[in-house]
Amino acid sequence: MSLLVVGSVALDTIETPFGISERTIGGSGTYISLSSSYFASHSKQVNVVAVIGNDFPEKGMTTFKEHGVNTDGIQVKENEKSFFWHGKYHHDMNSRDTLVTELNVLGDFDPVIPESYQDCEYLMLGNLAPKVQQNVIERLKKRPKLIVMDTMNFWMEPAFIDDLKHTMTMVDVLSINDEEARQLSGEYSLVKAARKIMTMGPKYLIIKKGEHGALLFHEKNIFFTPALPLEEVFDPTGAGDTFAGGFIGYLADTDDVSFDNMKRAIVYGSAMASFCVGKFGTDGLIDLPSDALTERVREFVDLVQFEIAMV
Amino acid sequence: MSLLVVGSVALDTIETPFGISERTIGGSGTYISLSSSYFASHSKQVNVVAVIGNDFPEKGMTTFKEHGVNTDGIQVKENEKSFFWHGKYHHDMNSRDTLVTELNVLGDFDPVIPESYQDCEYLMLGNLAPKVQQNVIERLKKRPKLIVMDTMNFWMEPAFIDDLKHTMTMVDVLSINDEEARQLSGEYSLVKAARKIMTMGPKYLIIKKGEHGALLFHEKNIFFTPALPLEEVFDPTGAGDTFAGGFIGYLADTDDVSFDNMKRAIVYGSAMASFCVGKFGTDGLIDLPSDALTERVREFVDLVQFEIAMV
Repeated sequence: MSLLVVGSVALDTIETPFGISERTIGGSGTYISLSSSYFASHSKQVNVVAVIGNDFPEKGMTTFKEHGVNTDGIQVKENEKSFFWHGKYHHDMNSRDTLVTELNVLGDFDPVIPESYQDCEYLMLGNLAPKVQQNVIERLKKRPKLIVMDTMNFWMEPAFIDDLKHTMTMVDVLSINDEEARQLSGEYSLVKAARKIMTMGPKYLIIKKGEHGALLFHEKNIFFTPALPLEEVFDPTGAGDTFAGGFIGYLADTDDVSFDNMKRAIVYGSAMASFCVGKFGTDGLIDLPSDALTERVREFVDLVQFEIAMV
Repeated sequence: MSLLVVGSVALDTIETPFGISERTIGGSGTYISLSSSYFASHSKQVNVVAVIGNDFPEKGMTTFKEHGVNTDGIQVKENEKSFFWHGKYHHDMNSRDTLVTELNVLGDFDPVIPESYQDCEYLMLGNLAPKVQQNVIERLKKRPKLIVMDTMNFWMEPAFIDDLKHTMTMVDVLSINDEEARQLSGEYSLVKAARKIMTMGPKYLIIKKGEHGALLFHEKNIFFTPALPLEEVFDPTGAGDTFAGGFIGYLADTDDVSFDNMKRAIVYGSAMASFCVGKFGTDGLIDLPSDALTERVREFVDLVQFEIAMV
């Protein structure tokens, strides 16, 4: 078994100018798992570790199973409620207000790694308390070939920053957005920010810029891919997690962690994110036709490729 | 003679968090001419049409000449002052306040095309009153092979929008920024905005997104190039004009207006813009070593190129 995904499996209420979607399945672990499932095969399953309450809909679990995601690592707390988030997007879709956050089962999440997950070679740590992410790494008997960690500004506050910095020393790739990179480094220039963050542990850094694309840094190399220009963005929720899921899914599938292959993984991650934002919640990630992803990647090639004869 | 550039040749006072530059040479015509001069040759000169007052420094004229720019079309109004702009950038360099705008000689600019400019095949209309841009097109005896028009939100106000829309029907390529594209089209999605704007005259549309790159639209094709991630942006003044100068300079030099060649022109324009923002005012465009541009374009190739075997 190849890919282990840890993250929140939650219920979201999402308001956008286009409508409202109430108590729909969401969370970093959900988006990452569904996205990476498109790169899985019989021998390379996606295995998720998470915790839910008894309010998580059976339909959500069915969705995982239909996408081949192994849910043996999802703990169900019978008398508790799932993590709940209620957010509202503004007209430009680039800013949002969090109206409600109920930690519920996530408050004391103690991740349990099923024995059958122990041989995973790729680990994706979705956004969670850095301490929990750290626990997962420590509970694996063998260090995975590649550990990718996503996090957010909340964990950069004084109460959590030491945990975050410690967990950062244990991972290979860190994935954050541009504002978070600035906050974490104290540098406005993303190039300077990246250089500083790469001295803090991760050898690779992904900076997500939402509708403006994503950057991958490693040593002196920089790779950039835009977000696909879309006619309509319905709901950006989960786009970053979906991107991360496509990234690690592609790497796990190809089992190649070279910088050149990471470039391709960034493109595949961006392609997956473009599906995510086109519909509400996880709807854009459900039952994609087999050639849809290839077609979407082709659009990226057309969008950015040019030929210049360099002397 | 091949390229005709029309625009403001002006004096700018620029304040940024890094310092202040007082009464330095600037204006759309200046940035475009200096940028496009790197693509000129003996047979393909850059010819500028503009108007200045007697306060424009001799050193500015010398700079044009040293870069091979033909200044025969620059009228000098002996008892008047040059267009003057004073702006101040905020810390993030993405927003600025205009503190002073003095139209001076631009107030009644009546462009005169020297006879020796009449055989130009490429026309770059830098930001100016749309009526003046229109006058230039009408005063050319032969329509150029390609007309590129840059403009700004100021001309989208009720007093000028009809002029702007009329001038737009006379050009091939329109170059505006993302906010202007939204204002002009009434569409938030840039894809929808582009589709609408391309029904208003220009067959090609460039949407500039500042530090987030630029998009080129034509029919159903979209091409994107990022801005080069830089350690430090000292002064964004003139970056859009410098981009336009590189774009039209490359097209005029290669004399090829295919979409594939326009992609390359966008990359060259972005490379020129990256030089512009690295220093104050026009300083980044002065006396660039001959291999600097090639090296910069190579950085763009490294930044965005990836290899994916498409089936």
